[in-house]
Amino acid sequence: MAQQMTIALDAMGGDRGPEVVVPGAELSAIRHPGLHFALFGDRSRIAPLLDRHPKLKDRSSIHHTDVFVAMDAKPSQALRQGRGKSSMWQAIDAVRKGEAQAAVSAGNTGALMAMARFILKTLPGIQRPAIAAIWPTLRGDSVVLDVGATIGADASQLVEFAVMGEAMARCLLGLEKPTVGLLNVGVEEIKGVEQVKEAGRLLRQLHLPLEYVGFVEGDDIGKGTVDVVVTEGFTGNIALKAAEGTAKQISTYLKLSLSRTLISKLGAFLAAGAFRALKDRMDPRKHNGGVFLGLNGVVVKSHGGTDALGFATAVDVAIEMVRNDLVNKIKTDVVEMGQLKSPAQVPQLADGTR
Amino acid sequence: MAQQMTIALDAMGGDRGPEVVVPGAELSAIRHPGLHFALFGDRSRIAPLLDRHPKLKDRSSIHHTDVFVAMDAKPSQALRQGRGKSSMWQAIDAVRKGEAQAAVSAGNTGALMAMARFILKTLPGIQRPAIAAIWPTLRGDSVVLDVGATIGADASQLVEFAVMGEAMARCLLGLEKPTVGLLNVGVEEIKGVEQVKEAGRLLRQLHLPLEYVGFVEGDDIGKGTVDVVVTEGFTGNIALKAAEGTAKQISTYLKLSLSRTLISKLGAFLAAGAFRALKDRMDPRKHNGGVFLGLNGVVVKSHGGTDALGFATAVDVAIEMVRNDLVNKIKTDVVEMGQLKSPAQVPQLADGTR
Repeated sequence: MAQQMTIALDAMGGDRGPEVVVPGAELSAIRHPGLHFALFGDRSRIAPLLDRHPKLKDRSSIHHTDVFVAMDAKPSQALRQGRGKSSMWQAIDAVRKGEAQAAVSAGNTGALMAMARFILKTLPGIQRPAIAAIWPTLRGDSVVLDVGATIGADASQLVEFAVMGEAMARCLLGLEKPTVGLLNVGVEEIKGVEQVKEAGRLLRQLHLPLEYVGFVEGDDIGKGTVDVVVTEGFTGNIALKAAEGTAKQISTYLKLSLSRTLISKLGAFLAAGAFRALKDRMDPRKHNGGVFLGLNGVVVKSHGGTDALGFATAVDVAIEMVRNDLVNKIKTDVVEMGQLKSPAQVPQLADGTR
Repeated sequence: MAQQMTIALDAMGGDRGPEVVVPGAELSAIRHPGLHFALFGDRSRIAPLLDRHPKLKDRSSIHHTDVFVAMDAKPSQALRQGRGKSSMWQAIDAVRKGEAQAAVSAGNTGALMAMARFILKTLPGIQRPAIAAIWPTLRGDSVVLDVGATIGADASQLVEFAVMGEAMARCLLGLEKPTVGLLNVGVEEIKGVEQVKEAGRLLRQLHLPLEYVGFVEGDDIGKGTVDVVVTEGFTGNIALKAAEGTAKQISTYLKLSLSRTLISKLGAFLAAGAFRALKDRMDPRKHNGGVFLGLNGVVVKSHGGTDALGFATAVDVAIEMVRNDLVNKIKTDVVEMGQLKSPAQVPQLADGTR
């Protein structure tokens, strides 16, 4: 299967466009022999870069576009101006047409989601898509969703996120039964906003074939208490960025502290290997790739400011999702959920509380 | 004024009760000569501890109670069982009666808030109270609220939080014009949930005497982009805990990395001063104290699992709030806001968008 796989790349996305996308794609091409890449964007910028990356060039095609979506364009504006002819649009459309198995872009998130929904459509039974982040934890990686696609998700949407996130965790983490938790302000059943409490009741009642363990709190994400953390897009986005901010803050403090005295500088020099290991573990480029879930196709969003290594990670994530047949796994699970959700199977309890 | 100040302490609150409260109060007593403490709780546990802390004993009174609120009690249960007679209730009630100027408890947050609201009542013009956290940032401390008191605050409540948080930042950070931001998923006016967008419009329209700078994102908290970060309690609680989780995660990684090899251990030994500085900067005990805002009195919540040093920080925060007359500052600001909020002053724009 990997032999025929093609990944469509929005070569113009991200802060530096092809300068990052081309070398990033080559890193991924080296790791995955047999893979083909379709690069969408300005041929006059892509072609000279490809000449300098022969390992990628051999397995790539360039699809020229004159238009590209600006990083700060509003989604509606991007749809209007980029429809049909932009590099982002065409990369996603290649997935719809079956010419590629996944699309990767480091472009404008809102525009990418709007176009992906428009072109690929949501899967039957899914109301709204989600963006899932891969979050490094003390127990390995976890899947956290939604981190910004669906602001203000309701209970049944949260249940759908749980189903989709669980399928992704099986694809990504190779777990047979990933554990799933709902993000809340306490672990007791009475705490939190109504839609989260209701989602918790639904997840217990529906007897979905997933390992729902209950509510988890913000600090459980970093601990890796569960493999899949489900939340609504507003809170998920803020939690993700608050954690990223803290990581940056500590690394700044660490650098400042270590450069204070000659002795501490010597210590830092001797412990350089340890710091490299730490940096490696926390490296955001190794956890790059927001996976769009709930669509008829695989679309992965890379950080806009990442470098080639980070972009290669996002491409790798897309490949993993295709190889493990993410979309069909979600489709199957959603059908199963739909059957369980039929009213006869969801008893209304007299007290209305659980 | 400091001469007459009395701080009421719930000596039974927290994971270890008087074992932490008494030595913690002594640390604060040493820092603040002339301060008096009223300790509420089990005399048979408090008195022997006070004998071992003579600097506190001289300036303390014990107020025996038979009842105390369990750390896992539900707020309603705590109100029922602890009403009138629990150490937590009596500590707050001392503030109502004017026998103390502030109450500090390391007990159950939900119970403390429920009792504080019941006993002290919310200030006129304030719909719901908030809990404000002191968040260390790259630019110094910031005030972040709400971190869990009011789940699902609406736009006008968010505006009240902005006013209260700004007053607290003036008291705590000694700034004349602290900057205020609304936590959102993007800085553009069109992003986010409706209540946050509406709160942003109100803050611009009302021309409150505060420095509202607009939306901020999750990673702006750690950067210290603004002095006061305003959000609703669900998201604020999760953001705070996600950041705490990340800090713990990185410190675990750092320890693991540094103990890997003999050379890195030697490096860590030499850089020990630097790590102490880092630890000191990130020490959660130095940022302990959730301030209850919007009530007729000062109540500060200490972390339940903190030690004496952490508890002393919470007591210091309470003292600072009393010294700087937090409650009256908020009262004045709320009156001013009420005048500005009269319908005549809030024009409805034709397009309804801002």
